[in-house]
Amino acid sequence: MITARCYPDGTTKEVNPLDVSEEIKRPEQLVWVDVSGPTEDDLALLQDEFSLHPLAMEDVRERHQRPKLEHYPSHAFLVAYTAERNEVDIFIGPSWLITVREDDVPGEPSFIDRTRKRFERTRAEHTTVGFLLYVVLDELVDGYFSRNDEVEDELEDLENRIFGEGPVDERDIQHELFEVRRRLLLYRRLAVPTRDVLAALLRKEVEWIDDNAVTHLQDVFDHVLRAIDMVDNHRELMGNVVDAHLAIISNRMNKVMKRMTSWGAILLGSTLITGIYGMNFKHMPELGWILGFWWALGLMAFITVAGYLWFRAKDWL
Amino acid sequence: MITARCYPDGTTKEVNPLDVSEEIKRPEQLVWVDVSGPTEDDLALLQDEFSLHPLAMEDVRERHQRPKLEHYPSHAFLVAYTAERNEVDIFIGPSWLITVREDDVPGEPSFIDRTRKRFERTRAEHTTVGFLLYVVLDELVDGYFSRNDEVEDELEDLENRIFGEGPVDERDIQHELFEVRRRLLLYRRLAVPTRDVLAALLRKEVEWIDDNAVTHLQDVFDHVLRAIDMVDNHRELMGNVVDAHLAIISNRMNKVMKRMTSWGAILLGSTLITGIYGMNFKHMPELGWILGFWWALGLMAFITVAGYLWFRAKDWL
Amino acid sequence: MITARCYPDGTTKEVNPLDVSEEIKRPEQLVWVDVSGPTEDDLALLQDEFSLHPLAMEDVRERHQRPKLEHYPSHAFLVAYTAERNEVDIFIGPSWLITVREDDVPGEPSFIDRTRKRFERTRAEHTTVGFLLYVVLDELVDGYFSRNDEVEDELEDLENRIFGEGPVDERDIQHELFEVRRRLLLYRRLAVPTRDVLAALLRKEVEWIDDNAVTHLQDVFDHVLRAIDMVDNHRELMGNVVDAHLAIISNRMNKVMKRMTSWGAILLGSTLITGIYGMNFKHMPELGWILGFWWALGLMAFITVAGYLWFRAKDWL
Amino acid sequence: MITARCYPDGTTKEVNPLDVSEEIKRPEQLVWVDVSGPTEDDLALLQDEFSLHPLAMEDVRERHQRPKLEHYPSHAFLVAYTAERNEVDIFIGPSWLITVREDDVPGEPSFIDRTRKRFERTRAEHTTVGFLLYVVLDELVDGYFSRNDEVEDELEDLENRIFGEGPVDERDIQHELFEVRRRLLLYRRLAVPTRDVLAALLRKEVEWIDDNAVTHLQDVFDHVLRAIDMVDNHRELMGNVVDAHLAIISNRMNKVMKRMTSWGAILLGSTLITGIYGMNFKHMPELGWILGFWWALGLMAFITVAGYLWFRAKDWL
Amino acid sequence: MITARCYPDGTTKEVNPLDVSEEIKRPEQLVWVDVSGPTEDDLALLQDEFSLHPLAMEDVRERHQRPKLEHYPSHAFLVAYTAERNEVDIFIGPSWLITVREDDVPGEPSFIDRTRKRFERTRAEHTTVGFLLYVVLDELVDGYFSRNDEVEDELEDLENRIFGEGPVDERDIQHELFEVRRRLLLYRRLAVPTRDVLAALLRKEVEWIDDNAVTHLQDVFDHVLRAIDMVDNHRELMGNVVDAHLAIISNRMNKVMKRMTSWGAILLGSTLITGIYGMNFKHMPELGWILGFWWALGLMAFITVAGYLWFRAKDWL
Repeated sequence: MITARCYPDGTTKEVNPLDVSEEIKRPEQLVWVDVSGPTEDDLALLQDEFSLHPLAMEDVRERHQRPKLEHYPSHAFLVAYTAERNEVDIFIGPSWLITVREDDVPGEPSFIDRTRKRFERTRAEHTTVGFLLYVVLDELVDGYFSRNDEVEDELEDLENRIFGEGPVDERDIQHELFEVRRRLLLYRRLAVPTRDVLAALLRKEVEWIDDNAVTHLQDVFDHVLRAIDMVDNHRELMGNVVDAHLAIISNRMNKVMKRMTSWGAILLGSTLITGIYGMNFKHMPELGWILGFWWALGLMAFITVAGYLWFRAKDWL
Repeated sequence: MITARCYPDGTTKEVNPLDVSEEIKRPEQLVWVDVSGPTEDDLALLQDEFSLHPLAMEDVRERHQRPKLEHYPSHAFLVAYTAERNEVDIFIGPSWLITVREDDVPGEPSFIDRTRKRFERTRAEHTTVGFLLYVVLDELVDGYFSRNDEVEDELEDLENRIFGEGPVDERDIQHELFEVRRRLLLYRRLAVPTRDVLAALLRKEVEWIDDNAVTHLQDVFDHVLRAIDMVDNHRELMGNVVDAHLAIISNRMNKVMKRMTSWGAILLGSTLITGIYGMNFKHMPELGWILGFWWALGLMAFITVAGYLWFRAKDWL
Repeated sequence: MITARCYPDGTTKEVNPLDVSEEIKRPEQLVWVDVSGPTEDDLALLQDEFSLHPLAMEDVRERHQRPKLEHYPSHAFLVAYTAERNEVDIFIGPSWLITVREDDVPGEPSFIDRTRKRFERTRAEHTTVGFLLYVVLDELVDGYFSRNDEVEDELEDLENRIFGEGPVDERDIQHELFEVRRRLLLYRRLAVPTRDVLAALLRKEVEWIDDNAVTHLQDVFDHVLRAIDMVDNHRELMGNVVDAHLAIISNRMNKVMKRMTSWGAILLGSTLITGIYGMNFKHMPELGWILGFWWALGLMAFITVAGYLWFRAKDWL
Repeated sequence: MITARCYPDGTTKEVNPLDVSEEIKRPEQLVWVDVSGPTEDDLALLQDEFSLHPLAMEDVRERHQRPKLEHYPSHAFLVAYTAERNEVDIFIGPSWLITVREDDVPGEPSFIDRTRKRFERTRAEHTTVGFLLYVVLDELVDGYFSRNDEVEDELEDLENRIFGEGPVDERDIQHELFEVRRRLLLYRRLAVPTRDVLAALLRKEVEWIDDNAVTHLQDVFDHVLRAIDMVDNHRELMGNVVDAHLAIISNRMNKVMKRMTSWGAILLGSTLITGIYGMNFKHMPELGWILGFWWALGLMAFITVAGYLWFRAKDWL
Repeated sequence: MITARCYPDGTTKEVNPLDVSEEIKRPEQLVWVDVSGPTEDDLALLQDEFSLHPLAMEDVRERHQRPKLEHYPSHAFLVAYTAERNEVDIFIGPSWLITVREDDVPGEPSFIDRTRKRFERTRAEHTTVGFLLYVVLDELVDGYFSRNDEVEDELEDLENRIFGEGPVDERDIQHELFEVRRRLLLYRRLAVPTRDVLAALLRKEVEWIDDNAVTHLQDVFDHVLRAIDMVDNHRELMGNVVDAHLAIISNRMNKVMKRMTSWGAILLGSTLITGIYGMNFKHMPELGWILGFWWALGLMAFITVAGYLWFRAKDWL
């Protein structure tokens, strides 16, 4: 679905997508075209109205591009991602901006709504394509931090389970560790090229972005750096957790073996007693004792208790 | 086999390889010579017709070069690889292009056929040597992505087997892990220098490549970056899988040891009972009981069941 | 709480925060405004008096920025951290400096007190904003070294426990190793961007910093390099400790298994003796011996002692 | 031993080493002095005839330098290594080249013989010092590839033994793995600075090297890159082999433990039967059976076979 | 203790430290002031005579700086370390050099003695401050190689113990491995910044260093590169040793377990025989045999020998 808005003289006006090629010719005008879940017709109309470059359109159709910034004679093409890993393709012209993105999830406020409200609130001061781009990118990047918080929570949960005393399902933990690491990896893969895109914008590679917008984009750049920093941090922590976990598993095995040895020795001790009094020697005084049987049972009980206390003291049980 | 084609005025004409040195002198002419499974004679003819540099020809003869771009006075020499790791040597002149590659596999459409069809379809607009080079490289690099998909499938399969519950042949898994890692390594070794070759083309190191072609090559460059990105991703995931796998093996050993301890204890318990009633004391009341034997068997059954439930509750069995 | 001081002609004068916009207009004047635990009112007043940029103010409000240096038309904005990881935001103007930080911990001398005393002691010579900045940053960075010493102590303690002979709680050690590594990671994350901030100052990116101050900042830069060096050192040592620890755990398991085997063999030997004399053969001479029982017990004692010595000699017990 | 050759006008002439200082003064003349197993006298003569720099001569005397290129006013000094890790020191003058190397191994064709034959064969075209240097370096670097092939064979052998089914001596494998890794490390240490030396030559840091030679040296540079690539490849593969090997050892231990558990359980089962019929109860019907003994033995056989099949089915045996 | 020497016209003259400020004013004069174990008075005198910068003096007082080179208006300040990790602070002026170092160890020739002798021997040719600096740094760096040799010996010793057959104390080996790695780390931390210092000198950042000295310093630079190379080599070898060691420990555990299983099975076999003939069946023909007991013992001996040979053949014993 295509939605086109003009921002003449501090006001907002919805326009027919078919008329935008007219609107963008007017001076002092800013046009923002937002396309959600684009159909082939939508894309053809866009390409036609704004003379978009075929290679850029091909990228839009294929999707799954890396975050990047490309320069064409009459416009620039920028690919970014939301924290939910939805691609947002942005065309930047001298007085217009096009955002192409997946369809909204019904009932959930899309990041574009938030962007629009924020832009229209602050529009009075800065109705430029650079500032609009800033608002879009800032909203995108802000979403990264809440994702980061989620990962932090998961990490803490994993730590508690790994370093805690309670029983754990190792296979589960391994799978979760692996999933969190995979997520961090994907996340980093988005954030790092996004940083490069922003650095290119700050180097003023896109001429239509005014100085004021560059100052603001510096702020977004800074946020991306912070996000990458956090991801790297989490990645390294995960590596440490994996190291610690391996040592803990090894150690648990150590404990199991000690316990095994201890009980084995205790049981074998009692068995030895029964073996001794099961021998068929003619001359074994105890065999004739009235309480001989109880004597033997007592010996076993003694061995068991003494062994238990002995191994307990050595911290093997 | 040598196939030579001329593209004058938007049409296609097959020419005798022996005449190409004449053809390339005509203005506004583009000549493409494709050599599959070159014989020594083919190479000698090529070197003669196009005055190719001996060092470049030596590389063509030796094969197994790294992807690279070399500059000679009258032409450039480029080495690239298909996703199947077949070498493609490319000579680039002001108005001609030579591709040298291994023989076609019969019955399978070669990537050169696809390239030719695509080039002749779009030729009308851009009959330049730069655009022809773009089509060749784009077809090569596009092949990388389907390889990537294969690796992704294998990786997922390995993950399922490693994190799954079913029995697995560890030696198999180790071998497969190793093979996938080796493949990723080789793949990366091709993709990274290919990226550098493209970067050199984008820096316009080869003067015969027009601006329009550079814009298109930017797109191929972008694809190579994406391919490298994916390989790095897979490599890191493989590393994580290997970590997780080691922990899972350790843990499985832990489980085996717990089970061993449990059954050992249960069996030793029963053996102890038989030992007790096998002692030769004169005064052991149970020995005289009518149901003494059953009492002993009952004791063993009780120990077995109780032990089983106890260890079960501790999650050792 | 806002405290504003003027340093005219080598003297110190406290001024009303509401008057600073007047003070900074006087020539040859240096104004230092220190804000601890800023309220919203404090920040509004500051922004008003010094015309601070809204984006910088937003960073001050949000906090948890990375150490960084940002340039605005009329001032620079710098974020640094104390060794205790408290953020210190610094605004640098041509003749004024603002430090914004968390509230002081009562009863503990804050690093700002130390800074002020040191600055006022050396002020006579260098009453410039650059020198004041140097004193602030030098105090901050000096704190890093005492933290480093703490980590060194912990590391030594861990080493002693890991390589020592005494019993240790593995889970504890794992947790501590993990915590120290996490701390080192966080510490590095602060120090590295701080180094970059200082490098930017040394490149004279902030024009109001005089040559003399740059010479002094070089010294701070050097300290940060040293701090990073130490952290990297500790990080690598930690990695080595983790490696060694894993090997030690493995080895301990080896020892437990050897001991288990040894005692198992000894006990099984004695049990075998009892089994032999428990057989019901009619013709077993020993069974009739007067001292047969003692003979058997003696055999067991012999096996036990011989086995013990044998395994002892092999260093298995 | 010193051998001096002049190459005037396309011919070859051996000259007395004492006369070379005369020969090099003639125009259009190329002098090549080759020194094998230099004595102190040889070196003194060289230094005298060519006015070689004392620091360079010190390096020649000390040997074990890193591959490097050094510039002195009247000549350049280059250190390279053969694949067998024999040092070759090369002095490059405007019209002369000196190679200093260890003594030839008798009966083995030295790489210098190959170099000389190749140079004299192609000399007609290019009798320049740059081309002679190219031939020397090309012969050196070509030797690297045969070494690489040897490592590849060893690696394959190790893989087969590690992933194979046959019994292996672990200690041997560990030692071999370690040795191959050490060799790769040393090899890399030679190849990487050699690459840098060649890069310096390509940047035309040595003025006496003509353009034609640079084109040829580019080819050697390319070979070194390929050699480094292969070494890195092998190093990473070795790392993967080590990972896989560790997992395989762990897994083998798992198998041993399962087998141990299985046979332990089976034997304990039979022992339990003997214990049961070894009890001294008065009323045990089986004891009176004619075939009671066979019944018990049958029970044991049944337990053994059933246990065996059961564990077999679980893949524990 | 301060020792000041002048080198006018190729001779050596000791001067009173209080007069050096006079001496350095004379043209064509070189002054070298060496301070060992400086007292506060010594430092004050130095600062006074040579107008040394307070920040540099602060570094001298604090010690434990990183190797570095700092530029002050009238002199440069350089920090280097001996192989024994003793700091040497060097001030470089237009015609003077100051070395500040720890006190000499009595009875041991200090590196400064060696430096002085060497300098005075070669002084005739090059009496410049640059050449003096070269001699000092060359002596320092040469010491690094003998340290390297020590590490190499230790490494070889560790290898022999780890890959050898003899019994080893694992805890000892772990500790030694760790210590060698720590030493390598510290060593690298000194060598790398020393390389950077030398690179700065080669870039002629200190103007008083003449071209001849730069040529010589190039040689020292080369030595440092070689030292770093060796350290990196050793570090990587240590990493490989650690890997191999872990595998060897694992494997040793495997062997212990196999042996345990083997002896366990053999003993259990004999025990089973005793159990069988300990059953109380009325009808067991062997019980009545004259040689029944010997038959049973023979069976056990047979099981033991057969089992031993069987496990031996499987290489489990």
